[in-house]
Amino acid sequence: MSRIVYVNGDYVPEEDAKISVFDRGFLFADGVYEVTSVLGGKLIDFAGHAQRLKRSLAELEMDSPVSDDDLLAIHRELVARNGIEDGLVYLQVTRGAADRDFAYPKDATPTLVMFTQSKPGLANAPLSHTGIRVISIPDIRWGRRDIKTVQLLYPSMGKMMAKKAGADDAWMVEDGVVTEGTSNNAYIVKGDTIVTRQLGTEILHGITRAAVLRFAKEAQMKVQERPFTIDEAKEADEAFITSASMFVMPVVAIDGAMLGNGAPGPVARRLREIYLEESLKAAV
Amino acid sequence: MSRIVYVNGDYVPEEDAKISVFDRGFLFADGVYEVTSVLGGKLIDFAGHAQRLKRSLAELEMDSPVSDDDLLAIHRELVARNGIEDGLVYLQVTRGAADRDFAYPKDATPTLVMFTQSKPGLANAPLSHTGIRVISIPDIRWGRRDIKTVQLLYPSMGKMMAKKAGADDAWMVEDGVVTEGTSNNAYIVKGDTIVTRQLGTEILHGITRAAVLRFAKEAQMKVQERPFTIDEAKEADEAFITSASMFVMPVVAIDGAMLGNGAPGPVARRLREIYLEESLKAAV
Repeated sequence: MSRIVYVNGDYVPEEDAKISVFDRGFLFADGVYEVTSVLGGKLIDFAGHAQRLKRSLAELEMDSPVSDDDLLAIHRELVARNGIEDGLVYLQVTRGAADRDFAYPKDATPTLVMFTQSKPGLANAPLSHTGIRVISIPDIRWGRRDIKTVQLLYPSMGKMMAKKAGADDAWMVEDGVVTEGTSNNAYIVKGDTIVTRQLGTEILHGITRAAVLRFAKEAQMKVQERPFTIDEAKEADEAFITSASMFVMPVVAIDGAMLGNGAPGPVARRLREIYLEESLKAAV
Repeated sequence: MSRIVYVNGDYVPEEDAKISVFDRGFLFADGVYEVTSVLGGKLIDFAGHAQRLKRSLAELEMDSPVSDDDLLAIHRELVARNGIEDGLVYLQVTRGAADRDFAYPKDATPTLVMFTQSKPGLANAPLSHTGIRVISIPDIRWGRRDIKTVQLLYPSMGKMMAKKAGADDAWMVEDGVVTEGTSNNAYIVKGDTIVTRQLGTEILHGITRAAVLRFAKEAQMKVQERPFTIDEAKEADEAFITSASMFVMPVVAIDGAMLGNGAPGPVARRLREIYLEESLKAAV
């Protein structure tokens, strides 16, 4: 079955889902995106993603193509039309199509593209039971990782480096400390304390990160937002990542070094449970 | 008149020049590009651009969509169909369309898009007589600028910063020294010596740069390939940039500080002359 994709106001079969070769998303990576998970046909953390989208657009002086209400309506329409029970909705906004010029065009209309991916059993993914293995790689991305742009070539290369090394993902290291994973925020647990990089331009301001830290504090867990090294991570009791589509995912090995007994740790497992439970309650 | 654009084997009117929203060039900036100038209906430095394209593709483990001969034939066909006397041919290769995943797809066919821009009188552009004004901005791009990827958001932002400051372009500064312009290589001249950043992953390996340095040496000019600071640049006798579409373009002011008497310097003017003369002889 072909998906129905949203392109600038139209719902079209995926084969017909096209944009101009002059779109600045294609020519300049001049665009931003969001990924929202769907569980039981409902959207997880939609308000957070809509909020961050507006922030990304504002940082790039880009217009918002639709209102929050319309954005929600399109998400729901795509979920319905594609019969998504578990999966995700991807959205991308670009500055629009214009003849190629580094300067922003004066009169381009922003492009809005949205599509779904079906991922049955997403909340109970096999990897969440075994945990994932990560390697460390240098973080050579641009300096404004707080803006969720489509400049994703290096994260993509990092994912391939991980695969070649027999791992699942890569943690990026800059100035001796971990920034984040290729498409997720990174955490370690030592004793009763959860440690994760503080917010800044160096990392994405994860929507799942914000929710998980809030739930952790509500559950009386200790949270430290500060940089940590790969060596510190290797000696941690456990580690995990968070992202919109992985929720809380345990990390069981870093650069080949097993953490704890090599199984997902109790803090990661507990946070995943809480996150899923609370997010499902608030899903729209 | 609508341009004729090349998209994956077809020559189509620009309104119909479209690619899939699943193209990795659009979703991940997973693509590379080249710009070749056209003067008098002929291609400038084509072999150099074809060579660099292959290098960019190899660095990203991406397949080449066509042979060099076919690439040249498409360039010529586009120039002919669009009646380009002076202007440029833009080409972009991406890893192709596949359902969204950070990992490279196993079976995607590379996308090849090419289009022209007509720029009558390109070799005699008014700015080449007055020179351009640049500002300095921090270089926050990713670390592999030697690969000519479409991750051009920051250069685009830099161009806008320059415009807002009443200038024409921006020179980027990293670790206290100039890397390059937003879409060109940067040079200063002090006494009888031309200074430009040495090659490395920090800058684009300009095709025009290579030719200009060769011509400079042939003309017995002294060339130093080394880093220089913005302060050194402000105290230089003259400055200029090179790029495929600007050739050799004099720079007359840096961060508001006038260089020399504020007019294009003799070295830049001489190099522009030589470059145009020699490149036209070798045009194909």
